[in-house]
Amino acid sequence: MIDRDDVVAAADRLGGRVRRTPSVVLDAGPFGTPVALKLELLQHTGSFKARGMLNRLLAADLPAGSRVVGASGGNAGLAVAYAARELGLSAHIVVPSTAPAVKVERLRALGAAVVQQGAVYAEAYEVAIAHAERTGAEFVHAYDQAEVAAGNGTLALELVEQVGPVDTVLVAVGGGGLAAGIAAALDGRARVVGVEPERCPTLHAALAAGGPVRVDVGGLAADSLGASRLGEVCWSVARRTGMSAVLVPDEAIARARGRLWSELRVLAEYGGAAALAALLTGAYLPERGERVAAVVCGGNTDPAGVLRDPA
Amino acid sequence: MIDRDDVVAAADRLGGRVRRTPSVVLDAGPFGTPVALKLELLQHTGSFKARGMLNRLLAADLPAGSRVVGASGGNAGLAVAYAARELGLSAHIVVPSTAPAVKVERLRALGAAVVQQGAVYAEAYEVAIAHAERTGAEFVHAYDQAEVAAGNGTLALELVEQVGPVDTVLVAVGGGGLAAGIAAALDGRARVVGVEPERCPTLHAALAAGGPVRVDVGGLAADSLGASRLGEVCWSVARRTGMSAVLVPDEAIARARGRLWSELRVLAEYGGAAALAALLTGAYLPERGERVAAVVCGGNTDPAGVLRDPA
Repeated sequence: MIDRDDVVAAADRLGGRVRRTPSVVLDAGPFGTPVALKLELLQHTGSFKARGMLNRLLAADLPAGSRVVGASGGNAGLAVAYAARELGLSAHIVVPSTAPAVKVERLRALGAAVVQQGAVYAEAYEVAIAHAERTGAEFVHAYDQAEVAAGNGTLALELVEQVGPVDTVLVAVGGGGLAAGIAAALDGRARVVGVEPERCPTLHAALAAGGPVRVDVGGLAADSLGASRLGEVCWSVARRTGMSAVLVPDEAIARARGRLWSELRVLAEYGGAAALAALLTGAYLPERGERVAAVVCGGNTDPAGVLRDPA
Repeated sequence: MIDRDDVVAAADRLGGRVRRTPSVVLDAGPFGTPVALKLELLQHTGSFKARGMLNRLLAADLPAGSRVVGASGGNAGLAVAYAARELGLSAHIVVPSTAPAVKVERLRALGAAVVQQGAVYAEAYEVAIAHAERTGAEFVHAYDQAEVAAGNGTLALELVEQVGPVDTVLVAVGGGGLAAGIAAALDGRARVVGVEPERCPTLHAALAAGGPVRVDVGGLAADSLGASRLGEVCWSVARRTGMSAVLVPDEAIARARGRLWSELRVLAEYGGAAALAALLTGAYLPERGERVAAVVCGGNTDPAGVLRDPA
């Protein structure tokens, strides 16, 4: 469980180590309703995850040179590698043997030791856990640790400083580490709506089942939102704060991404455009005058791909 | 001649018609020195030109349905078409017969009538002038009219509101319509350094010759910075405010663009990255503690191209 105090503490702890990413207020043109965008894809390593991982490792207060271990070939892995390098720690990242060479290279470029083991992510995860238990390395979860979520939530404090109070924040949900942080940061001040691809419905499934359950994932945004289960940290915050969930089809995510590029020259990854898809489809319909914000949470993508999106 | 009052008047006139584009403050990582970026590529039509063209047409106070004419297949043409549509005017844009179909289509998508005439830009320009004289249409210059430059300069007022006072603003120069507006806006408050590709040296040549002269242009950024002559508006402001000029090679522009993408997930056109190339090469060397800003002035480019830039 985390609350606003944890997020404020994270912001203090992070200080100038994360970028204060910009926000921009749009009129109704691009997405059919005015919306303030938090451009978190401009963060170190191209996603919000740098906030959470830096907070996690700072809070752990490890001696210089300590080993940290994580399992992720995506945004979380990049952020762990970056955070470890910034803090003088040694990152070991476990990725499945099927991980693309380009992802492995990016991790190595950040100074991480990359271990390719396991056929799928779940197996890499088990390898990482075992590694931590065997070596005493600090295990960093991709989303489901309190300090990770609290660090991620610091972007919500900035958002409100930048654009003023908001009524609603739309945020993409995979494991829920960002949504949890934002909902904790803004508890009692704004509602948080989790937006999920139809094919990555972890929050939806948790709300339906009364708790996190395993779901099958796939589709356009699975590389960043394809956690197979909502985190317990997110679940506890979601229940306390009344977080709701809406689903969007891949087609709308592609359209939102195309529109971010054609109307705004912002090139997001599919997961980074998912929150805006809810405005395009009407999955989330703001009331008149409602102050809506959305997080463009990542930009780690092949830029050429945006040419294939409808706009 | 324009001064700060003209820019302030332009900002009042524009009101909410232009986006308040975001700024982001970077540490020394990406460009070797801390720098505040004005992300003006997020403006309507993907460049700062929407500011100048809207201000130009608003100031002209034309009756609804009036015809305006411009000559440009690039950012200026897009901005004229956009501004005309926003204000209920009828835009005629003359482009050379060699203009790529994709540029013609983008102009038409904004509601402009596109006339393809002349072998090169200079001929299209003459056609546009003749069209204006013949029909009484309002001729809008791509950069060399006072209201155009004053409108462009409004981004400098926002920049200082967003990041606080700056000592120096680095800005790419083609015809100088943006540099003129910024220098007028910040006259006595900050110095403006014009950054030019070695192969598009209009300001350099003007400073050397004691006034605007015709230069040959080419290279990576010629599509946005390839004016063949500095505007008189820019020259008058440059002389009064002591604007200086530095040159950067195409290789450094490509490197700056690659770094904007790899470090920041900002995908600029080459001209939009030129100002930052001056920091990478040391063509502009800030003093210790100097508060430097740079304008990322446009993003109308093929996103796939950034994969070929060194980073």
